[in-house]
Amino acid sequence: MGEHRVVVVGGGFGGLQFINDLKGAVTRITLVDRRNHHLFQPLLYQVATTILSTSEIAWPIRHLYSDRRDVTTLLAEVTGVDAARKQVQLRDGTTLDYDTLVLATGATHAYFGRDEWEPVAPGLKTLEDATTIRRRVLLAFERAELATDPAVRDALLTFTIIGAGPTGVELAGIIAELAHKTMPKEFRNIDTRTTKVVLVEAGPRVLPSFAEELSAYAQKALEDLGVEVRLGKPVTECSADGVKIGETFLASRTIVWAAGVQASPAAKWLDIPADRAGRAIVGPDLTAPGLPDVFVIGDTASVKRSDGSPVPGIAPAAKQQGGYVAKVVRARLAGKAAPQAFRYRHQGSLATIGQSAAIVDFGKVKLKGWIAWWIWGLAHIYFLIGTRSRFAVAWSWLWIYLSGQHSARLITQKETMRDEG
Amino acid sequence: MGEHRVVVVGGGFGGLQFINDLKGAVTRITLVDRRNHHLFQPLLYQVATTILSTSEIAWPIRHLYSDRRDVTTLLAEVTGVDAARKQVQLRDGTTLDYDTLVLATGATHAYFGRDEWEPVAPGLKTLEDATTIRRRVLLAFERAELATDPAVRDALLTFTIIGAGPTGVELAGIIAELAHKTMPKEFRNIDTRTTKVVLVEAGPRVLPSFAEELSAYAQKALEDLGVEVRLGKPVTECSADGVKIGETFLASRTIVWAAGVQASPAAKWLDIPADRAGRAIVGPDLTAPGLPDVFVIGDTASVKRSDGSPVPGIAPAAKQQGGYVAKVVRARLAGKAAPQAFRYRHQGSLATIGQSAAIVDFGKVKLKGWIAWWIWGLAHIYFLIGTRSRFAVAWSWLWIYLSGQHSARLITQKETMRDEG
Repeated sequence: MGEHRVVVVGGGFGGLQFINDLKGAVTRITLVDRRNHHLFQPLLYQVATTILSTSEIAWPIRHLYSDRRDVTTLLAEVTGVDAARKQVQLRDGTTLDYDTLVLATGATHAYFGRDEWEPVAPGLKTLEDATTIRRRVLLAFERAELATDPAVRDALLTFTIIGAGPTGVELAGIIAELAHKTMPKEFRNIDTRTTKVVLVEAGPRVLPSFAEELSAYAQKALEDLGVEVRLGKPVTECSADGVKIGETFLASRTIVWAAGVQASPAAKWLDIPADRAGRAIVGPDLTAPGLPDVFVIGDTASVKRSDGSPVPGIAPAAKQQGGYVAKVVRARLAGKAAPQAFRYRHQGSLATIGQSAAIVDFGKVKLKGWIAWWIWGLAHIYFLIGTRSRFAVAWSWLWIYLSGQHSARLITQKETMRDEG
Repeated sequence: MGEHRVVVVGGGFGGLQFINDLKGAVTRITLVDRRNHHLFQPLLYQVATTILSTSEIAWPIRHLYSDRRDVTTLLAEVTGVDAARKQVQLRDGTTLDYDTLVLATGATHAYFGRDEWEPVAPGLKTLEDATTIRRRVLLAFERAELATDPAVRDALLTFTIIGAGPTGVELAGIIAELAHKTMPKEFRNIDTRTTKVVLVEAGPRVLPSFAEELSAYAQKALEDLGVEVRLGKPVTECSADGVKIGETFLASRTIVWAAGVQASPAAKWLDIPADRAGRAIVGPDLTAPGLPDVFVIGDTASVKRSDGSPVPGIAPAAKQQGGYVAKVVRARLAGKAAPQAFRYRHQGSLATIGQSAAIVDFGKVKLKGWIAWWIWGLAHIYFLIGTRSRFAVAWSWLWIYLSGQHSARLITQKETMRDEG
């Protein structure tokens, strides 16, 4: 114990795991985040699709550490790091001194150089993103109900999801269920069962990180829900009117971007090499090259597995890295030998398709259908922080399961009918 | 039954009660609202103060009528009424023909000619208002934690509520509890128990619509929670730095407006007389003068009780009016004699002070303390629409009661630390 000052930037899975595992080792930990909440990102798509409400998947960070007198939480935006002075720079001009720095600042969505697509094709990384997508999806049905021109109505009832990774597949499945199962009885001028949900993937199959047989199953399950899967051609244009897939134009008033990820600027702050997605390339102990007191973890770090493949940008990977760095810092403070190099243990991949199908890939064991769906559900409820949220989410799901009705279907925020025109 | 076309503007308590009670009488009801949700306004202050989340007190209107094939729900903004042509005008330029029109468009907050105060002293009428107030309250504590100047810190930890009606009293009580009970363990640089919550009322007592003994009890209960009650002097200035009460300046970075109400422009649309708050003065059968097919109900109507006092702008009054108008319309369609003039039955007044005290005024019977609090809680849970919300709200309250922790403490929307400066 001593006045060793630890600064953690980012209250995501990696940052929190690090702080949890460092308990008792140091007396001064400062956690900086520009948000006041930790977000359970794996369920964010359920907020975007009216299943869960925002407070069911996000918790005030400072509440999580109310009993940890060693942890100070600051709501502030980091703008840079002065590694020579060992200082973190905040937007208000003040600085924080550190002895050990952990950067766990995550990633955002990327448009591969087409940032002008963002306003018409929002991505899904924050609570605001989720409520934006929810609002747009719900408003599209509302406008279709009012539309007099059949072409406009069809474009309003066509939803395009770009990118068939887990997020894209999950969004497409639930939007299709919303249109085909939840909403039909509620509209008088339109038949929401005519809704088209188009999932576009430039690669040859959906969920490319899963085994081929599971990809095939997922595609079949999506098609059963009424999703149109278009593979092998990239989106070449996005506008308020629709998308161009290869050379073909699709009139679609609602577009969601689930295709690319860009790391936060941690590598730039440290002036160290990054990979193509902007992830800082770190050493085997997750330190920045030449900066032994600075660790980079989670989605903003580029780490390789023993077979040379990249560690995936998922919550369990970030948690393992946070736990590992806590071990390294503990060893250093205790004057003990450093632990062996970080080694990622893949626990399995999960994805859901709508509310009754899922796939689970544990490597040797591959599961699909309702068994996979229950494993997925229990795993996610288990990993939700906070007893109350576990119950609340379980209750929301049970309710939808029994009643078929989504409850979080609110159109909020300023962007009203009038603003969007 | 026939092609009698009924148009209802506004999906609040009055409009929904009217539609519910008209079931089976006509075949074409069109409900127009510029929001997609019905809002349980009596609990809106609990969203503003982190107790409930938005989806616990709001429901998609069209879902409420999914089984009523006679009801068409439109998300659209009404801009006027052409009473001669019997048409409602929508913002997109289209019109809706009516045979019977019910205007139930509610009220918003009013600044008595000082509209420039709105940005610094937001009122509480919509879900967005509630999340705005919640964000400002939470950000004030966050900024205080970062503040280096003691004067700035004190101003950040001073909250001013203007107006000591039920909403003002409820907000003040919960903010005081938040600061004095929920948050103290979570901050390291500030002691949130030093927070000042100031409730300003120009009149001589809090909750003026209650009996004097109950007002006195409420004031005592507020003071026990740490609220400073300032009576008898109006607020004469509001700015980003604070308020002027009479001639005294109070440095306060967070101000909430709970003082005045302004009716929606229904009276202007119809070109009929209105009272000082803009409420349409209607006849004894709630029709607009000279327009027997147009009814105005709820907070946008000025109705007198038999003793000449105004019918209060509360949910039960709006519901009674909606039910009454349904009876009138039914009688007309059936060719029967019109019901007697509308007569308001006051069922009692309720208000809470924090999370353990309340007052109930049934006229002869007056209750206070925890018994009143349980009556208040049960009454509100009972009147919540939708089984799920009843359980969800009961569960949220029980959780807070048992754990002392609020769960809906999220800072969302665009207005971040940086934007507010």
